[in-house]
Amino acid sequence: MLKLFSYPGTVTLACQIALEEAGAEYELVRVDFATNAQRAPDYLAINPKSRVPALATDRGVITEAPAILTYIAQTYPAARLAPFDDAFAFAQVQAFNAYLCSWVHPAAAHRHRGNRWADDPAAIADMRRKAPENFAEAAQLIETEYLRGPWVMGDDYSICDPYLFTVAGWLPRDGIEMARFPKIAAHYERMQARPAVSKVLASVAA
Amino acid sequence: MLKLFSYPGTVTLACQIALEEAGAEYELVRVDFATNAQRAPDYLAINPKSRVPALATDRGVITEAPAILTYIAQTYPAARLAPFDDAFAFAQVQAFNAYLCSWVHPAAAHRHRGNRWADDPAAIADMRRKAPENFAEAAQLIETEYLRGPWVMGDDYSICDPYLFTVAGWLPRDGIEMARFPKIAAHYERMQARPAVSKVLASVAA
Repeated sequence: MLKLFSYPGTVTLACQIALEEAGAEYELVRVDFATNAQRAPDYLAINPKSRVPALATDRGVITEAPAILTYIAQTYPAARLAPFDDAFAFAQVQAFNAYLCSWVHPAAAHRHRGNRWADDPAAIADMRRKAPENFAEAAQLIETEYLRGPWVMGDDYSICDPYLFTVAGWLPRDGIEMARFPKIAAHYERMQARPAVSKVLASVAA
Repeated sequence: MLKLFSYPGTVTLACQIALEEAGAEYELVRVDFATNAQRAPDYLAINPKSRVPALATDRGVITEAPAILTYIAQTYPAARLAPFDDAFAFAQVQAFNAYLCSWVHPAAAHRHRGNRWADDPAAIADMRRKAPENFAEAAQLIETEYLRGPWVMGDDYSICDPYLFTVAGWLPRDGIEMARFPKIAAHYERMQARPAVSKVLASVAA
């Protein structure tokens, strides 16, 4: 059975939602960041990057949210989570998720994890101050340019949706009102109404 | 015909190599960062993120290196640049490229583009100092865990190889000796020996 290594508040959420949407059987394994379990030897053997998510399959481990999301979409084709048969449409899915992982997520992370990129407390404080500007600017770009509605890619729900839902959920935490972005806010509500999402949120809260 | 919007020293290089490997016809369009052309209205209409690469196709524009690389692999299947028929193997390709775009590239970018994440000159200087530590640590992880040899994914050349080649090429620029990572250095030489790569390098130098 698939095992998803996870921690609350991370992009693991997007992967868990995709697993639920796909109807996959999986076990959720919590990697306890509070005790630094992500750096323990048994977890480093699973993911040497000491991050979550990681998805253990019967052929080995897959890391990185965009890769895990694509894998779920490809191995559960009946759920129609990505348009593999249309290279251009698939590229749009990939580009959206790459933007989240390469720019939006790191931009937001400068608020809470500035010590990844600097050591001086004053530098970390300056990143922390600026991070919400970058995050809000990226959210505005998604609002204006990329979120077609009702789902990210338009009429077809895809692996972009749980990923956007996860990242958008960080806006209030970072002091940014989601209501500034009406399409993102409506997407967030639409996502919460999906049975797969409410099931996952209930399990995270439990 | 495909148009690749590019600038020297960026990950455009990986996409251009993939286009050559695929035998694609394409036009290279230089977006002149020196005159801030990436922020001019005509380029923002192509890529509202004001970054390169962007690949204009007859159906529209694709942004983000991992998405462009996958698109090239999918639309030129004879070049066998990604294992689309094996979801687990494809996930490994995706995970490698996602690691480059989400962690390694931003880690390196803190050396030259710290102003993306902070405003205080002292903060930017502290990032600049720390960036090579992060970049070298990531290179070590690739060396130890991910570069199978002779190509990233083992015997099969893939869209991971031009991407690694591009990012590894930044090591010396950032004061990190490539020879510290013998497998990466050997991969870099192996890449340079490929006709597609030498053709692209000659065009960039022209």
